[in-house]
Amino acid sequence: MKRMLASTAVALVAVALASPASADLKPEEQIEIRQAGYEFMGWNMGKIKASLEGDYNADQVSAAANAIAGIANSGMGALFGPGTDKDIGEVKTRVKPELFQNMEDVGQIARDFVDAANTLAEVAADGDADKTKAAFGDLGNACKACHKKYRAD
Amino acid sequence: MKRMLASTAVALVAVALASPASADLKPEEQIEIRQAGYEFMGWNMGKIKASLEGDYNADQVSAAANAIAGIANSGMGALFGPGTDKDIGEVKTRVKPELFQNMEDVGQIARDFVDAANTLAEVAADGDADKTKAAFGDLGNACKACHKKYRAD
Repeated sequence: MKRMLASTAVALVAVALASPASADLKPEEQIEIRQAGYEFMGWNMGKIKASLEGDYNADQVSAAANAIAGIANSGMGALFGPGTDKDIGEVKTRVKPELFQNMEDVGQIARDFVDAANTLAEVAADGDADKTKAAFGDLGNACKACHKKYRAD
Repeated sequence: MKRMLASTAVALVAVALASPASADLKPEEQIEIRQAGYEFMGWNMGKIKASLEGDYNADQVSAAANAIAGIANSGMGALFGPGTDKDIGEVKTRVKPELFQNMEDVGQIARDFVDAANTLAEVAADGDADKTKAAFGDLGNACKACHKKYRAD
């Protein structure tokens, strides 16, 4: 199931699928919603980091990891539709146009990201801080793989 | 586990817990992150609604429900800390001050919301559109219970 969802996410990215739900959204709405997803994942990444560096709270970390995995698997590729490659009025985006020109590479990066998020959620559910730390590092690298290539500073 | 997470969410709301992760956040950051969570849940609610009203896509609905449940269980109560009861510069909030004065009621509403989100995720995973529709309606009512009392129009 998770594998299937990962493939679905890639497919969404690869074809910038115009699903009914995303076709209804203006480009500026797509940008705002994808930024909301990244911001909320970022908050949860921060909570996991703080827990790994302080008193480990397995329940909080697992909940944070589930939030990240839920967002990662939700088909965010649909939020990179036509017209979302640049600022729209007050709605700014840091995405580089190169993202839309390298869909095969982006698809692989998206698949790695979803896999890493799912692995973190699975490992965190077991409550082992060391294994969670490793999976958290892998997810961070999966995030950076996209930021480095396709996000402006 | 889910019950425990629900209780945790309530506890977070009830005491506006200053966890290390939220203590590090400025009030305006807390407002922005909670709005990001609601916005991303809203996108996923919209996808589920569109699927229920059109061609039912069980995988997409399940993924959307998991995203909502993941966010709902992530301890958003920590994002309602001191100073987040009003606009801060350019960061606007629609929360009514009454929310912070009725923590017992808010705790119950939060628990009902998390329960409804978990139920929707469980039902959607089975792929039955009718049962999902009912659970989706229940979740919508759980959202509205808070909006009606504690969110300005």
